Amino acid sequence: MSKGKFIAIEGPDGSGKTSIIKALGKMLENEGIQPVYTREPGGSPIAEQIRELILDVDNTAMDYRTEALLYAASRRQHLTETILPNVQAGRLVISDRFVMSSLAYQGVARKIGIEAVWQINQFAIEDHLPDLTILIDVPAEIGLERIEKARHSRQYDRLDREALAFHQKVRQTYLDLIPEWENIVVIDGSQSIEQVSNECFESLKEHGMIN
Amino acid sequence: MSKGKFIAIEGPDGSGKTSIIKALGKMLENEGIQPVYTREPGGSPIAEQIRELILDVDNTAMDYRTEALLYAASRRQHLTETILPNVQAGRLVISDRFVMSSLAYQGVARKIGIEAVWQINQFAIEDHLPDLTILIDVPAEIGLERIEKARHSRQYDRLDREALAFHQKVRQTYLDLIPEWENIVVIDGSQSIEQVSNECFESLKEHGMIN
Repeated sequence: MSKGKFIAIEGPDGSGKTSIIKALGKMLENEGIQPVYTREPGGSPIAEQIRELILDVDNTAMDYRTEALLYAASRRQHLTETILPNVQAGRLVISDRFVMSSLAYQGVARKIGIEAVWQINQFAIEDHLPDLTILIDVPAEIGLERIEKARHSRQYDRLDREALAFHQKVRQTYLDLIPEWENIVVIDGSQSIEQVSNECFESLKEHGMIN
Repeated sequence: MSKGKFIAIEGPDGSGKTSIIKALGKMLENEGIQPVYTREPGGSPIAEQIRELILDVDNTAMDYRTEALLYAASRRQHLTETILPNVQAGRLVISDRFVMSSLAYQGVARKIGIEAVWQINQFAIEDHLPDLTILIDVPAEIGLERIEKARHSRQYDRLDREALAFHQKVRQTYLDLIPEWENIVVIDGSQSIEQVSNECFESLKEHGMIN
């Protein structure tokens, strides 16, 4: 059986990743492809336990470096328990977030520094980067507006409470990272979910992730 | 108020650290010193939640690098929430384990490599090393024998189940690290608890940790 592919969908909160992955998934399933859907933090039984710790609204005393180490721990477990075995088995794995999120959120928005956060993540992922990263770019204002609207329909977690400046830094870091990132596609997330998921589907084809 | 001191008690499982700290504490309290007793993994509310994850016997699928990152996360939180504020307040903080444990257990016994484990721990502790490390040295056979005896009187966790070879590597790594470690005292843990705790007390005096 041929090796599968690992796709990471990245973007700031409110970029619509979850809805986009759902729509993209339908298009793939119509083509007879059954992707493995996963997400970070979490994505494996142990990684989901780490996720609970990170997002627990009662854990307000959590130091930013503790948080960064927990994200890296969750990522390691997600990689070894979920991503790698499925790619090895020939599956198309689609992850809602991966290492780029930590560089943007912990590295810059939390002011730890990209280099330091990259180092602990290298420890976590060794050489395993996505075969393709799709970055859904959206202005921070639009992202925050969408979060506000969704407040009643999904769990409103600790990270959503951050201010606009934080979200702006996250978006800017994603944009700054593009030139250094291999195998990346940027898609305008202010379009409709249908348009964005169509572009995602076309990108998967163009980059040889699907036939 | 003058700055306090941070003491780490290190040693393989079964070296008697817990009993020694109890006996040493009584001697200190007799001198009018009220130490802050703490331990790793854990030592603060969030760090204790991470401890539960690490030591949960059901988490057999935990990757060794995930484990190492969780220890580092727990350490960071322990440092910022418990150790540093108490040292700042002039207290004598005695911790059952600190960073040396990760080098021995994750770095060597788990075969990740000391350098890699040291890097993620540098991220966690920055420049905050103990003012004095007391290493309780004991042959692996004696350590394991004590663990077996204590099996019914304390929680028998996942790490205790490791084999003799693992414990031997841990002990050897501690010994190998001594020449590179600043501010360290080695005490023969095969002596009685009374003898060992007496030597600990004398070391604290000699190294200016107490008056």
